[in-house]
Amino acid sequence: MQITNFNDYDTVDLDEKKQALAIIDQTKLPNELEMLYLTDQKDIWEAIYHLKVRGAPAIGVTAGIGIYLAAKEIKAGNYDEFYAQFVKAKDYLNSSRPTAVNLSWALKRQEGIVIANKDKSIPEIVEALHQEAIKIRDEDIAMCKAIGENGLALVKPGDGLLTHCNAGRLATVKYGTATAPMYLGHERGYNFRIYSDETRPLLQGARLTCFELSQAGMDVTVQCDNMSATAMRNGWIDAVFVGADRIAANGDTANKIGTSMVALAAKRYNVPFYVCAPTSTIDMNTASGKDIVIEQRKPEEVTEMWYEKRMAPEGIKVFNPAFDVTDNDLITGIVTEYGVARAPFKEAFEEMFRRKKG
Amino acid sequence: MQITNFNDYDTVDLDEKKQALAIIDQTKLPNELEMLYLTDQKDIWEAIYHLKVRGAPAIGVTAGIGIYLAAKEIKAGNYDEFYAQFVKAKDYLNSSRPTAVNLSWALKRQEGIVIANKDKSIPEIVEALHQEAIKIRDEDIAMCKAIGENGLALVKPGDGLLTHCNAGRLATVKYGTATAPMYLGHERGYNFRIYSDETRPLLQGARLTCFELSQAGMDVTVQCDNMSATAMRNGWIDAVFVGADRIAANGDTANKIGTSMVALAAKRYNVPFYVCAPTSTIDMNTASGKDIVIEQRKPEEVTEMWYEKRMAPEGIKVFNPAFDVTDNDLITGIVTEYGVARAPFKEAFEEMFRRKKG
Repeated sequence: MQITNFNDYDTVDLDEKKQALAIIDQTKLPNELEMLYLTDQKDIWEAIYHLKVRGAPAIGVTAGIGIYLAAKEIKAGNYDEFYAQFVKAKDYLNSSRPTAVNLSWALKRQEGIVIANKDKSIPEIVEALHQEAIKIRDEDIAMCKAIGENGLALVKPGDGLLTHCNAGRLATVKYGTATAPMYLGHERGYNFRIYSDETRPLLQGARLTCFELSQAGMDVTVQCDNMSATAMRNGWIDAVFVGADRIAANGDTANKIGTSMVALAAKRYNVPFYVCAPTSTIDMNTASGKDIVIEQRKPEEVTEMWYEKRMAPEGIKVFNPAFDVTDNDLITGIVTEYGVARAPFKEAFEEMFRRKKG
Repeated sequence: MQITNFNDYDTVDLDEKKQALAIIDQTKLPNELEMLYLTDQKDIWEAIYHLKVRGAPAIGVTAGIGIYLAAKEIKAGNYDEFYAQFVKAKDYLNSSRPTAVNLSWALKRQEGIVIANKDKSIPEIVEALHQEAIKIRDEDIAMCKAIGENGLALVKPGDGLLTHCNAGRLATVKYGTATAPMYLGHERGYNFRIYSDETRPLLQGARLTCFELSQAGMDVTVQCDNMSATAMRNGWIDAVFVGADRIAANGDTANKIGTSMVALAAKRYNVPFYVCAPTSTIDMNTASGKDIVIEQRKPEEVTEMWYEKRMAPEGIKVFNPAFDVTDNDLITGIVTEYGVARAPFKEAFEEMFRRKKG
């Protein structure tokens, strides 16, 4: 369905009336604005696989809703039959993006709901999955909002804020992580000037971040990744907010390729550099950035994708890492739903996890 | 004329048989390889204007040859008539890229030849312009070669060398400036591993540098600009060589946007960072980088150029500086035809200029 009122929709939702997964098709942005209402498991699988929905938190919520919709369709005479079919549906959805941790996390959480309700009737189990799907969604919104409040306390009205890639509302249900302080500040009249790196090779900054923030009415400027140091040198940037794919116990942060070069420039020009991420992104079993393996992606993303013709000669070798590691000494603070961790990060994280449990 | 043997042609030449300006059409690279043989002044003007030939040194040589070809066609009864028409032709060519310093430099140099030979016959003046055009070309080759020798002394066989943008043979007659050490080393079996930043927004690295170096038989890897820090972190880069658009008296260097971010990464990972440029690029009247005005280019280069569709939303603001300034403390050495200047640069430059005069 073509829509015009982007701001009226969340990135991922359960449409109760249609009993469908409602997502914005991100592969069409920024040129077309299309809502998809999916009920078929194959369609949901393909939406995840083809990045129509992307961003770790958004994928988790999609999986939570998707597996509820699958369970609703199961025809089973007893719990064992139901559970066997549920596991089959779960494994199928999980295969859409095997490396996405939030995908398997949400599916496991829903499986736990099934097991915990095994003595109930099948309609009751399905309703429990329905409620848990809503809970997963609402928790995501609350988590982003808390990150936003904690990040907003670090800046002031009129500030210039730079971000890289899309850790935006399009990667979550709403607010985003790195963009959460921007949305909350915007609602309160902070009049930020936002600078968005385009983020090669896949241009998530230009296509997604610029789109969502300008739709929200913010003042957004796009720039090539190699221009962020000049924007800082010009004195335009008061803080950098980026997301994270994985944070090691010592604070070293893996995020979209190029993040570490923004951090180096921020250090040079004394601009505070903040990583915004839920505590679920912190992996205390990973000691440092050295232990994070960086995925390489296909060469064509650099040499062909988005172009009419090849933009580099045939047969050229290509280096195309998906992520880079920003060392902890370049990070001013890590903004989570529980507050802002500062160096030494390990101790700060341990304190956060104590509060999380308590 | 379509060609297949790129290495047999210089970037700019005077074809003596055809009495034509011979250039490789750089707007067609890397997908088509086409030599242009131009005699008409309008065609030469358009070749410069539309960047079929680009790079400061190459434009200078083009102008030297172009104005000779114009002078050859002048029908004049006496010196004054000849000179008036020469000036008209000169002003016309000069209008093709008014900010290109080498363009007006070469044209003024040729005007000096006309004036110095005013007592000679018109055919003799034209022949003097012919010889000077060849001299300008040969000086460019010798200058690049000297830069190459001085740069080559800084590296060793098997080294990984990173460059940004195209300060390559395609920006000069042959060898290039930043690429000159690579070509000379390659001729001597150094087996470099070359890393080329793609160089957004116009992709001169991916389109031109990767093309020319791989045609020469070198081992070339292309990467997005935001990946160079990761290549350095991985230990793959032993030295960075970049060109320069303008070097201030204190060594601060204006070069293609993104250069300063490569320099910041090089500092972080202890990789020597060298600027390669002829002494004509050093402007002792510009005290520091603060005095260099950075040209802004049109937004569509970032949001549309090279793409089938817009890659950023309509109406978004765009920051698109053509150059950035790399501070002198990030520069290990400035490699010129007279040797390698090191900090304090002002004193080193003054010493070079004394040798140049002497």
